[in-house]
Amino acid sequence: MPNSLINLQPLSQPPNQADLLLTHEAIHSFVHRTPVMRNHSLNVMASCSLHFKCENFQRIGAFKMRGAVSAALRLTEEERSQGLATHSSGNHAQAVALTAKLLNIPAHIVMPHDAPKVKVAAVEGYGASITYCENTPAEREKTLKKVVAKTGAAFIHPFNDYGVIAGQATAAMELIEDVEAALDIVMAPVGGGGLMAGTALAARYFSLQAVAWGAEPRKVDDAARSLQSGKIEVNETNFTVADGLRTNLGERTFEVIHKRVPKILVVSEEEIVHAMRQIWERMKIIIEPSCAVPFAAVLRYPEMFEGKEVGIILTGGNVDVDKLPF
Amino acid sequence: MPNSLINLQPLSQPPNQADLLLTHEAIHSFVHRTPVMRNHSLNVMASCSLHFKCENFQRIGAFKMRGAVSAALRLTEEERSQGLATHSSGNHAQAVALTAKLLNIPAHIVMPHDAPKVKVAAVEGYGASITYCENTPAEREKTLKKVVAKTGAAFIHPFNDYGVIAGQATAAMELIEDVEAALDIVMAPVGGGGLMAGTALAARYFSLQAVAWGAEPRKVDDAARSLQSGKIEVNETNFTVADGLRTNLGERTFEVIHKRVPKILVVSEEEIVHAMRQIWERMKIIIEPSCAVPFAAVLRYPEMFEGKEVGIILTGGNVDVDKLPF
Repeated sequence: MPNSLINLQPLSQPPNQADLLLTHEAIHSFVHRTPVMRNHSLNVMASCSLHFKCENFQRIGAFKMRGAVSAALRLTEEERSQGLATHSSGNHAQAVALTAKLLNIPAHIVMPHDAPKVKVAAVEGYGASITYCENTPAEREKTLKKVVAKTGAAFIHPFNDYGVIAGQATAAMELIEDVEAALDIVMAPVGGGGLMAGTALAARYFSLQAVAWGAEPRKVDDAARSLQSGKIEVNETNFTVADGLRTNLGERTFEVIHKRVPKILVVSEEEIVHAMRQIWERMKIIIEPSCAVPFAAVLRYPEMFEGKEVGIILTGGNVDVDKLPF
Repeated sequence: MPNSLINLQPLSQPPNQADLLLTHEAIHSFVHRTPVMRNHSLNVMASCSLHFKCENFQRIGAFKMRGAVSAALRLTEEERSQGLATHSSGNHAQAVALTAKLLNIPAHIVMPHDAPKVKVAAVEGYGASITYCENTPAEREKTLKKVVAKTGAAFIHPFNDYGVIAGQATAAMELIEDVEAALDIVMAPVGGGGLMAGTALAARYFSLQAVAWGAEPRKVDDAARSLQSGKIEVNETNFTVADGLRTNLGERTFEVIHKRVPKILVVSEEEIVHAMRQIWERMKIIIEPSCAVPFAAVLRYPEMFEGKEVGIILTGGNVDVDKLPF
C-alpha cells in the first residue's frame, strides 16, 4: 500500500473538474504514469499527427486499474475492510484483485468456470479468492450476490459507476497534459463506456478544444446506435475480435456519453485486425484488438482526421499470443 | 538530413572514450533516444533488477541504425557522394538504406533473391536500389564487389568496422547514462559482434563498475568458443530461432571482445523462446528472438545475477508476426 492513503468522496453524479483532479492525485501512487508514444510511419499512413497513450504498459496490462482504485478509495474504511468483489473474466478482475492486494484487503472474484487459465492464474497470483459459476450473465450476477452477502465485500462495477468513470478519465488527463500540441480529437474504444465517458470528461475539463470521439466494432455497435436513438441500445451478437468491447452501455456511462460524445465511428473486423497489425509492426508494442479500433477508424475515415492532432488511448495489452488474429 | 552535419574521423583502431563521445554527438540527430524500460514481474522472476534498453523502438526497428550512421559519417564528402552499399537481407540493409536517404545519397543493397518480401519492401521504401543474387556468402560478396565497382559506392560492413562498433556503443552509453543505479552488468547478444564490442567499450569508458557480458544461442556459440580458444571459431550450423545471431565474429569485433568481454553465456533454443515470450507477455513489447537471448541467460544462470543491477540491450523488433515461435 502506498504510504499516504487519500480517501475520496463517493460520487452521486458525473465527476467534475475538481473531482477528476482529486482522483488523479489519489490514484497516482497505485498506477503507472504510462508513456505517450508516437510513430512517424503511422502518422504518414493516417495523414495526421497521432499520440498514443500506452495503457498496455499500465499495471495489470490495462487501464482498468485506474477505475478500480478510484472506486475502492471512495468506500468508507469500514466498507473497504470487508474487501472488494466483482464478476469478470477479463482485465477488470485483475484490476480489482491487485487493488485489493495493494490495500491489504480481501478480493472475491466471480469467474466463469471456463475462463482462460492464464486469466485465472493472474487473479490468483494477486491473492484473490475465486468463485466459479456457469458462464451466463444471470449466473454471474446470482453468484456475485451470494458472495457479497456472505463476505460483506463491496461490489466494484466494471464501468457503470461514477467513481470508476473518474478513474478511467485520468488516462486522457495525462495524455492531454503530456502532449505539447493542443489535441483536436481524443479517441477511445467503447465497451461498457467507462473509459469513453471518462475520456469525454477529461477533454471537457482539461483541453481547450479537444472533442472526444468513440470507436466501435460494427458487430457490436450498441453505443453508436444509442447515440442516434437517444436511449441505451443493446448488441444482438457478441462476435467481434475486439473482445473487450462486447458489453452494452450502462445508464451512467450512457448519460455522460450522450451528453459529451458527438461521434462514435464504426469499423469492420478486417479493419480492426489490419489496424492492430500496423500498430504491432510499426510501433513494436503489443496491444489488444480492442485498442486498435480507434486507429482503425482513423484509417477508415481519413477526411475526418487529416492534419489534426489526434490522441488515442491504447487500452491494454493482454492478448493470448497463441491465438492471434493474424 | 539533420541541419548540421557533423563529420567524423575514420578509425584505424578501436574507438576510445573521446571517439565514442564524438560519435554520439554526431549520430544523435539521425537516431531515436530510445527509452529504458523496467518490469516488476520480470525482476521478481529473475531475482535481480533489470533495465532494458529498447532498441526495438529505434528507427528501422533495430540498433543497426546507429552503426550505419556512424560509419557513413566517417566517409569523406567525396566518398559519401557516390552512395553507400552493403549486402544484407536483414536490419543492416534497412539501416544503410535509411542512412543514405537521410544523407540524400544513393544506397545499393545486395539481397538474396529469396529474401522475405517484407524486408525487400522496407528497403525499397527508403529508396534504395536492390541487386538480387543467389543466397550464398560467395555470391553475395561477388555481387557486392560488382555493384561497388560499377557505382563507386562505399561498402558499409555490418559489424567488422571500428566506425560501426563506435555507433553500436552508443546504445549502451545511453543505457548507462539513463539508469540511476550503478549497473553491475551490461548484456548484449552476440552475432557478428558489433554490438557486443561497442557495449564492452561503453562499459569500459562510461561506467565505474559494469562488466559487459555476452549471450549466445548454444547452436551458434562461435563467440563463446572463440573466447575460450583465443581465436575466431566458426559455427557449423546456422539453425537457431535467434536469426540475428548466426554470423561469426570478425577480426575487429573479436579483437575488442577478446580483450574486454570476460564472459559469454550460452542458452538453448527452448530457453530463448521462453524468455522471448516472458518479455512479450509481461512488458507488452515486440522483440526479435535474438533480443531474448541475454534475458534467457539471466534466467538460466540465476546465481550469477542475483541482487545485481543488470542492463540488457533489446536489439530490435522486426519479427514476422505470421511466423512466431509460439
